Amino acid sequence: MEIKVMKNIMYANEKTANENREFFKQNHITAFNIMASPGAGKTSVILKIIEALKDIAGIGVIEGDIASSIDAEKIEKTGVPVVQINTSGGCHLDANMIKLAVRDLKLRENSLLFIENVGNLVCPSAFDLGESIKMVIASVPEGHDKPHKYISMFEAADIVVLNKTDLLPYIDFDKDSFYKGICLLNDNVPVFEISCRTQDGIKALLNWIGDKMFK
Amino acid sequence: MEIKVMKNIMYANEKTANENREFFKQNHITAFNIMASPGAGKTSVILKIIEALKDIAGIGVIEGDIASSIDAEKIEKTGVPVVQINTSGGCHLDANMIKLAVRDLKLRENSLLFIENVGNLVCPSAFDLGESIKMVIASVPEGHDKPHKYISMFEAADIVVLNKTDLLPYIDFDKDSFYKGICLLNDNVPVFEISCRTQDGIKALLNWIGDKMFK
Repeated sequence: MEIKVMKNIMYANEKTANENREFFKQNHITAFNIMASPGAGKTSVILKIIEALKDIAGIGVIEGDIASSIDAEKIEKTGVPVVQINTSGGCHLDANMIKLAVRDLKLRENSLLFIENVGNLVCPSAFDLGESIKMVIASVPEGHDKPHKYISMFEAADIVVLNKTDLLPYIDFDKDSFYKGICLLNDNVPVFEISCRTQDGIKALLNWIGDKMFK
Repeated sequence: MEIKVMKNIMYANEKTANENREFFKQNHITAFNIMASPGAGKTSVILKIIEALKDIAGIGVIEGDIASSIDAEKIEKTGVPVVQINTSGGCHLDANMIKLAVRDLKLRENSLLFIENVGNLVCPSAFDLGESIKMVIASVPEGHDKPHKYISMFEAADIVVLNKTDLLPYIDFDKDSFYKGICLLNDNVPVFEISCRTQDGIKALLNWIGDKMFK
C-alpha cells in the first residue's frame, strides 16, 4: 500500500509538472528550479541575477521555505514580483504549489522565473516542477565531497554553480575531487565558479542565463 | 489513505525507537543523533570527540549517507568501530536502521554512540531513533537565519553546536539574530561555538558530553 500511495503522488506530480511545462512554453517563460543545501546562497544568486537583468527582462520569483518569509522580503525590496510558499514542514516544493503560485505572479511573456526550492540537497531532486532548467548551487564551505554523496541532485542538474569561492583561501577544498564527482554523474553539465560577495564569475553566469531565455 | 500510511510509518518508527531507547538504557549507552545541513561538519565534530575521548570511553559510530562511505572511512582510521548505512536516496535515518546497525557495533557498557544522520536540516528531525541526545550542528557560512527557517530541527535540539567560527571574520554572520532564533524556539538549549579547524571551543563541548555519559 505504501508504494502505491507513493506512486500516486509521483504520478499526480508529474501530470501537474507537465501542465506547468506547457504553460511556461506557451508564455515563453524560462523557469529555473534552484536547489541547494541550506545557506549555499540560493537567494544571493537570485538577487545578483535580478540586479543585472531586471531592466532588460521580465523576472518573477517563487520562494519556497518551511517557515518564514525572510528571503521573499529580500526579493521584494528589488521591486520584482515574488510569491512566498511556506511548506509547513514539507521538505521540498511540488508541481501543484508552483501551479498555484505562478497564477499570482502574473508574469509577462519572455520572463525569467526563479523558483527557490527548500534548502535541502536530497528531496527536491525527486519532484519535477515543470521547470526549464534545474540549477544546483554548491558552496565552498560545504566541502568538495558533496557530488560524491548527494548523487541524485548533481545527476539531475542542468547547471551547477559553485558559490562562495572567496572562502577558498580559508578552507581545504579539493577542486579536483569536486569536479571529478560531478563528471562521474553528469559529464557535460556546465559548472560556474562564483562569489556573490566579490562578484567573481557572476558575469559568465549571467551570459549563460541570458542565452537560455526564450528568444 | 495517504495520511493513514504516514501514521503507520510513524507508529512503527516510534515503537522501534522505544526499543532502541530501552536497549541504550540497559547497556548504559549514551546515543547522540547528530543532525545538520550537508557540510556543516558532523564528521569533523565526531572525529574531534573520538580523538579526545577514545582512550577513556567506549565509542561507536553509525554513519548515515545516501551514498558513499567517505565519512565511515575517516572514522575507521581512528580505530573506533563504525557501521555505514546507505539509505539509497532516503533523506533521513529511521529507528529500524539503527536497531540493525547497533547489533553490528557490539558496543561495551558505558559507551558513547554517535549516529551521523543524513545531511539534511529538514526530514531527520521527524524521525525518533531512540537517541539519548539530539545534537544539531549549524555552521557559520550557512548564515544566521537558519534557526528562523528550519524550526523543527532547532526546536527538537538538546544541544546546538555552531561550527566553523574561524570563518566569522570573512562572513556577515549576525550572532544576535542566530541566538534570538534559537531562543524563540528552545530557550534553554545549550549552544557551543566551536571551530574544528582551530580547536576553539572544543574543550567546553567535550566537558558537556562527558557530563552526559551514563555514570
